[in-house]
Amino acid sequence: MTSTAPDIGLKPFHAMEMVSLAQEIEASGRSVCHLEVGEPAAPPAPRVIEAVRAALPQPQRYTASKGLIELREALAHYYESQHGVSADPQSMMVTMGSSSGFILAFHAAFPPGAKIAVTRPGYPAYLNTLDGLGFRAVEIPLTAASGWRLTAADIEAAYRVEPFEGLLFASPANPTGAAVDRQGLKEIIDACARLGVRFISDEIYHGLDYRGPSVSALELTGDAIVINSFSKYYCMTGWRVGWMVLPPDLIRRAEMLQQNFFISAPTLSQIGATVALGERDYSEEQKARYAANRTLINKGLRELGLDTGHEAEGAFYAYADVSRFTNDSLAFSKELLNQAAVAATPGIDFDRVNGNRFVRFSYAGSAETIEEALTRMSHFLSTR
Amino acid sequence: MTSTAPDIGLKPFHAMEMVSLAQEIEASGRSVCHLEVGEPAAPPAPRVIEAVRAALPQPQRYTASKGLIELREALAHYYESQHGVSADPQSMMVTMGSSSGFILAFHAAFPPGAKIAVTRPGYPAYLNTLDGLGFRAVEIPLTAASGWRLTAADIEAAYRVEPFEGLLFASPANPTGAAVDRQGLKEIIDACARLGVRFISDEIYHGLDYRGPSVSALELTGDAIVINSFSKYYCMTGWRVGWMVLPPDLIRRAEMLQQNFFISAPTLSQIGATVALGERDYSEEQKARYAANRTLINKGLRELGLDTGHEAEGAFYAYADVSRFTNDSLAFSKELLNQAAVAATPGIDFDRVNGNRFVRFSYAGSAETIEEALTRMSHFLSTR
Repeated sequence: MTSTAPDIGLKPFHAMEMVSLAQEIEASGRSVCHLEVGEPAAPPAPRVIEAVRAALPQPQRYTASKGLIELREALAHYYESQHGVSADPQSMMVTMGSSSGFILAFHAAFPPGAKIAVTRPGYPAYLNTLDGLGFRAVEIPLTAASGWRLTAADIEAAYRVEPFEGLLFASPANPTGAAVDRQGLKEIIDACARLGVRFISDEIYHGLDYRGPSVSALELTGDAIVINSFSKYYCMTGWRVGWMVLPPDLIRRAEMLQQNFFISAPTLSQIGATVALGERDYSEEQKARYAANRTLINKGLRELGLDTGHEAEGAFYAYADVSRFTNDSLAFSKELLNQAAVAATPGIDFDRVNGNRFVRFSYAGSAETIEEALTRMSHFLSTR
Repeated sequence: MTSTAPDIGLKPFHAMEMVSLAQEIEASGRSVCHLEVGEPAAPPAPRVIEAVRAALPQPQRYTASKGLIELREALAHYYESQHGVSADPQSMMVTMGSSSGFILAFHAAFPPGAKIAVTRPGYPAYLNTLDGLGFRAVEIPLTAASGWRLTAADIEAAYRVEPFEGLLFASPANPTGAAVDRQGLKEIIDACARLGVRFISDEIYHGLDYRGPSVSALELTGDAIVINSFSKYYCMTGWRVGWMVLPPDLIRRAEMLQQNFFISAPTLSQIGATVALGERDYSEEQKARYAANRTLINKGLRELGLDTGHEAEGAFYAYADVSRFTNDSLAFSKELLNQAAVAATPGIDFDRVNGNRFVRFSYAGSAETIEEALTRMSHFLSTR
């Protein structure tokens, strides 16, 4: 069931490689349909931009390493109002997107070389960051047949083959959009508790559950590390600002690591993030667009012969089976980009075993872009 | 001579701890003279702010992981015009301040657990980041008597006692302001080459040499990793943007690490940084203020009985011997803050062996702040 795949070393993040290739094509004057990276088409809410504009003339100094207290208090209010849980601003750390949150979480909670489990498919930076930092990844394979959802049984089966000290898990997930419900998350957390495994909950796609409110690990346990970001729901990818909520035993070590590894997160981004938390109506408008895009792209891909299984429960990705057309998703993605000017991300980014049969399409962009991409793909596939 | 000190594990960054304590005092309504952190009093140049203001309404997306090509081309021009060297934009990486540059450098160049030498005293994050990431630090002690300057002989003596794979070195240095000249830097680089030690040149205080132009390691070798930042000379601390120049054998691995560890540096900060490189007149005006402050604070501290040795060649710090008043620089700094509302950084941040006798005062702020701090310190010391 489980494997530490032979091919588990550092790899490029192909989504970012596709960004670079797409920019080269655009430099030659062609327009590219960008479906390769999970980036909202919209800027942050107008009040976010106003607040940052107002702050611009002042020197933007380092903040306290944990982050602006106003932002951490706003986060505490967010957990109270959205999740019904009380979270202490002193347990929070404002980070440089979720990216630096992972680095802090791994080094705060585990000794060098520790084994940490992740799902396959999963976010590519999980494996690559673990390898790059000298930790060891244990992969827990998921299947389309089970809706790409992780279960307590999967965790226990993997642990029996190869014990691990941590589990890093996202719901909704990238690249599949799969999400567990409250009961599913509780079973995962309980399995970790039974096994003595530290649970790291990547909640970056929270707010983007299409079935109802997202369930935070904070509602179920005080022992998890929660990682979140303003990138997706708040449309702030390039702002590089996220946050963590730490269990009591890790707060001080994580703070010392943050002071030394990063000093503090970008100040203007923290100012913007503080305002963004209060602009949920704006974020819900964006979500409504993704929901419409989700229907559009799933239908379109299916008509083209690309199977996306059932529609994903969250995030803004369609993870499509391209095996009718290719057994090499990287070559396929490059041809699609070069010939049809549609940028998508090969599944090998997310799954080094079976990802050759899948391509991920982001529908965070505009409906127009998705329609144009489907038209271009129709021509492209008809020539194969 | 050398020691891997017994006390080499993860410590808080006391400068950032003093920031937090100072903020608590300010919350009670008292004004604090901030001499604890190396932060310019001025905002970035007006054209930087204008460029960012103009970009604000657009979505700020991830950039290519190496950074905006416009910024990397501007950096190539900077090396050509300021240092007379040709540097390929493809060898550059835009980072989240120098902080993430260190993490990328260590993991690009060395295996987990490698030994990397740093000077004592030195920037505290060197030791703490190495420890936090699972590398091992070797300290090379420097002395006030030798002007806190590192020599090839120091490196060779340390290496004989305990071989290391890398040397991370800053000129001008923090906390001493010590700087080596071209010949001194060449001897250090040559010593590393003889020993097979990878040289990492931390050039964050470049531009802030009071004796003449800063000499980049790029002028002397193609094998070094160069790390720099927009924080100091360009007054952009809280913007969290810096850069690296990588030797050919490390470019690809560093890029893959950047893609996965951090995705890309903050986009607005990259836009601002691109403009900042062209605004050297503004930075030179700031430098002229630091030069005046340098005279003011060194004279003032000496009159108070705090010995700063000869005036430092660069950066904006006075590293003062406080042993006439205390043998515990941390307690002394806290009393100075609580009683006199002057924030400074205890030497133990920079030197865990002899730092109990030193306190670092930053003179990056305004002359008025320094004058007020000297007055307050005069009262404070007279009561001891």
